[in-house]
Amino acid sequence: MELNIYKYINKLIKLDTKNMYENDFLLTWEKTKDELLAVFTVADALRHLRENNVSARIFDSGLAVSLFRDNSTRTRFSFASAANFLGLTVQDLDEEKSQIAHGETVRETANMISFMADVIGIRDDMYIGKGNAYMRQVAQAVEQGKSDGVLEQRPALVNLQCDIDHPTQSMADMLHIIHHFGGVQNLKGKKIAMSWAYSPSYGKPLSVPQGVIGLMTRFGMDVCLAHPKGYEVMSETLSVAGQNAQKSGGNFTVTSDMQEAFASADIVYPKSWAPYEAMEKRTKLYEDNDEKGIKALEKELLEHNAKYKEWTCTEELMKTTKGGEALYMHCLPADITGVSCKEGEVEASVFDRYRELLYKEAGFKPYIIAAMIFLAKTQNPDTVLHKLAGDRKMPRTL
Amino acid sequence: MELNIYKYINKLIKLDTKNMYENDFLLTWEKTKDELLAVFTVADALRHLRENNVSARIFDSGLAVSLFRDNSTRTRFSFASAANFLGLTVQDLDEEKSQIAHGETVRETANMISFMADVIGIRDDMYIGKGNAYMRQVAQAVEQGKSDGVLEQRPALVNLQCDIDHPTQSMADMLHIIHHFGGVQNLKGKKIAMSWAYSPSYGKPLSVPQGVIGLMTRFGMDVCLAHPKGYEVMSETLSVAGQNAQKSGGNFTVTSDMQEAFASADIVYPKSWAPYEAMEKRTKLYEDNDEKGIKALEKELLEHNAKYKEWTCTEELMKTTKGGEALYMHCLPADITGVSCKEGEVEASVFDRYRELLYKEAGFKPYIIAAMIFLAKTQNPDTVLHKLAGDRKMPRTL
Amino acid sequence: MELNIYKYINKLIKLDTKNMYENDFLLTWEKTKDELLAVFTVADALRHLRENNVSARIFDSGLAVSLFRDNSTRTRFSFASAANFLGLTVQDLDEEKSQIAHGETVRETANMISFMADVIGIRDDMYIGKGNAYMRQVAQAVEQGKSDGVLEQRPALVNLQCDIDHPTQSMADMLHIIHHFGGVQNLKGKKIAMSWAYSPSYGKPLSVPQGVIGLMTRFGMDVCLAHPKGYEVMSETLSVAGQNAQKSGGNFTVTSDMQEAFASADIVYPKSWAPYEAMEKRTKLYEDNDEKGIKALEKELLEHNAKYKEWTCTEELMKTTKGGEALYMHCLPADITGVSCKEGEVEASVFDRYRELLYKEAGFKPYIIAAMIFLAKTQNPDTVLHKLAGDRKMPRTL
Repeated sequence: MELNIYKYINKLIKLDTKNMYENDFLLTWEKTKDELLAVFTVADALRHLRENNVSARIFDSGLAVSLFRDNSTRTRFSFASAANFLGLTVQDLDEEKSQIAHGETVRETANMISFMADVIGIRDDMYIGKGNAYMRQVAQAVEQGKSDGVLEQRPALVNLQCDIDHPTQSMADMLHIIHHFGGVQNLKGKKIAMSWAYSPSYGKPLSVPQGVIGLMTRFGMDVCLAHPKGYEVMSETLSVAGQNAQKSGGNFTVTSDMQEAFASADIVYPKSWAPYEAMEKRTKLYEDNDEKGIKALEKELLEHNAKYKEWTCTEELMKTTKGGEALYMHCLPADITGVSCKEGEVEASVFDRYRELLYKEAGFKPYIIAAMIFLAKTQNPDTVLHKLAGDRKMPRTL
Repeated sequence: MELNIYKYINKLIKLDTKNMYENDFLLTWEKTKDELLAVFTVADALRHLRENNVSARIFDSGLAVSLFRDNSTRTRFSFASAANFLGLTVQDLDEEKSQIAHGETVRETANMISFMADVIGIRDDMYIGKGNAYMRQVAQAVEQGKSDGVLEQRPALVNLQCDIDHPTQSMADMLHIIHHFGGVQNLKGKKIAMSWAYSPSYGKPLSVPQGVIGLMTRFGMDVCLAHPKGYEVMSETLSVAGQNAQKSGGNFTVTSDMQEAFASADIVYPKSWAPYEAMEKRTKLYEDNDEKGIKALEKELLEHNAKYKEWTCTEELMKTTKGGEALYMHCLPADITGVSCKEGEVEASVFDRYRELLYKEAGFKPYIIAAMIFLAKTQNPDTVLHKLAGDRKMPRTL
Repeated sequence: MELNIYKYINKLIKLDTKNMYENDFLLTWEKTKDELLAVFTVADALRHLRENNVSARIFDSGLAVSLFRDNSTRTRFSFASAANFLGLTVQDLDEEKSQIAHGETVRETANMISFMADVIGIRDDMYIGKGNAYMRQVAQAVEQGKSDGVLEQRPALVNLQCDIDHPTQSMADMLHIIHHFGGVQNLKGKKIAMSWAYSPSYGKPLSVPQGVIGLMTRFGMDVCLAHPKGYEVMSETLSVAGQNAQKSGGNFTVTSDMQEAFASADIVYPKSWAPYEAMEKRTKLYEDNDEKGIKALEKELLEHNAKYKEWTCTEELMKTTKGGEALYMHCLPADITGVSCKEGEVEASVFDRYRELLYKEAGFKPYIIAAMIFLAKTQNPDTVLHKLAGDRKMPRTL
């Protein structure tokens, strides 16, 4: 493949990205369509540079602070890869949860870690009503730190998963879909089934289904959310999805019938999540340190889950999709029946057939994160892409 | 702001810094006044470079080893920021305390981690009589490693806090003072109250007050150390402070009256610390693994602390300072009454009024550490500053 | 010392290294003699560059993933040093052992961490029959990831210690020997005693003795493995050593007499290890979570060890070596009698006399690892060395 950065620059200059500069990426539905398309374009451009062994270091030094209030291998590696590719060094903040509990200290911590930080990536998806709110506190603190002259630069925040949205995941998923269907212009009317699926574990975050319905409805797709009764997602995200569908000329429906969702679907995304109300309850139990209550809730939820073991992505169900060959998606790791658990989200043969595509889906995430950083930290992203591929062109490896 | 590095170079060339090259920074009172001023000058110069988006990478590769025998977010981030800004990568050493217990192993460990290390930052403030002594063992080991031909370069040590001094803190504090009062020439006669203050926690290190009295007495200031009886600091540092004051034409007094210390003070630094003798006792109890003894001591110390709750920085007390508006300082985090604890070191309204300045105070630390590294690793620091801003000038970000 | 890279390039161009490109380094006996010599040559060349303050950054960005299923300070620092010197950033993978238990997940994990990984260093030496097998699973996974188009580059694996071999250790040991005896051409007929020695700890890995007999027999040396009955190493490595000796015109013998091994030896390497069969038994006990069995085995092994306290490297024994001054070697840390334990592998005065040499031995490891990475990631290593020292010459430090 020959280096041709103009393909991407020509797309980018038609998009209005000026509000992305020095700004955060917290929820996809706060971004204009131009801004979303800019992320996809820059992600593709950065990948193109890398495939042609061209360095994309826009930073000679600088820190990318990672603040994970939850374990994560995949997101951690994606963030580290993106930061490294652009020239930043990851610095982990391993605060005790208690230490960053109240407003005062969030403000202080945010400033203390930001003296030389260009980016802060936050993952905080454990407690309903907390994660995204926390990110906004940090954003406000560094905004004020900049205007007070405490910080020389204002680090841009990237939401690496919160209680509401998982934008780096849904954007990577979307870029995978765009490539799979040959371009964003081909997505109109394509049906995607975002379906709950059974898993023997409990308490999986809602940010993936919420992120998917909040994003895929922006592109005129026919988005169908399916789940058993009792597995409702946040009502706020339902409204967002509905409004998006209306504006984009797409469709958004909710069903409690997995078969209906899969019928003639072009894309299926079967995945377990916890009921929103249960997560709210759990958040309160954790606040009260009510260990007994937490255990009781866990038991209750697992028993509840077990009633819906037939919510699983079988070969039979896949046959009912468009041409029997819908694109199967998952954020990984999946609970695979007979492999990682006795009964799970997906039949082993389905997973196996899509494995290569699933890995490719995951492979977009580092570039999506890098593109979010790139657009937040360069005032003229097209000019910088031009520099990287042109006057300053440096090989990534000798 | 326009780039003008000559302002700093012109200061620097008048200072004798040749003994700083390939040398450690362990105690401020081992450094000449020229050397202290050089650190301030280079810290300002590096900040100036960064504010003008000029790279300060003096290392193309190299490790900055961090050896923290105590948790720390702030110092860790400051060290990481400084290392990164100069082009070094931090490598943490998480040794079990037991593994580096005796002389033989300190020597071995010091060599094993230094094959490609340019800097070693050590924080070891837990045990009286241990931290600084440990640093000197490491310094001796790498010195010999270099002369034996085991090490190609001799990593420079930076004391990131020990039992005696906390030079990166006190130097950052001092640089804050210098900027606040418009230059080092304006400090003569300025009164600083380094005062003990009540905190509901126990065992806070003495290195901050010791470091402050050991450094601020170098500049002709009127330094007043205040604490209740029983909260004495190491007598060695009292002697140092006294001698410094005499040489610099300043003043050093000790009082057990907080009011007296604050009266007409230009600067106040109210902060909790543990009594030196109690810390010595605790060190022995830890050596003997005497858990009962440790708990008993903790209880005793907390009860003792509680007798001095009136040692707190109130609005009322602030009114007694010079013009009622002394510069309030703290190394952070502070114990704020009604915010982070019921009764603490400082009243919330006082803290709030100085918050912006406190954050700025903290913001000097990364540059102070970077300057210490810079002066230890460049033989001709003025020439290197000239290169960074001149012939080799590279943007920090594209 | 003046920069003269041609000395190394001239050696390198005579060696056939083309199969090293995009390949792993898992066992020394899978490598041709040319390939081993290439590693030594490049290690020396990289050291020469560093000693002359020339940058060896062949990567402008990129990750070196470290996957340690065992604690390690020394190897971790060596890997970090090597990666940093070449321009890579280390990213640690701290997977729970359970998470990477079965084949499916190894494949998935390997791909998920490799989207921007140039190198993966693995240390997995705890369980017999597992470590090297695991590395091959990872290698196969990334090979397929590359051919599937999931990965843009195929990260090269470096074995940082497994159940069978410890190639970065044995190669560093060998380079130390080569330098000590003035060149690889002087090793023919030199006697090395790889001897078991008593230690009060149990379960030390076999990879060091196995690695040493598997490598040193390649160079026509007279390799003598000595251990008490019951401390047999893997039979596979005995065969390898025997065949190597035959091919290289050297000698390989096994004895249960330490004196015999030391007699007239040019080099002695006394070190404790666990019996192979006991390690196999332990692996099974761990698989069965049989804690009682593990404790019983531990007790049994320690009692067994204690029968052989006379297997220790004394001054007296050293006198029986060639001229009484054999080169004493150890991978460190050693169990030193009266220093780190009551009775151990070596007498304190012997260890002390060789301390400087032991530290130098250890100092080769970062360069050996860097050379392995260099040869795996550059298609024309001689051309790249030429670039580093010639047209692109950049100082490592300003």
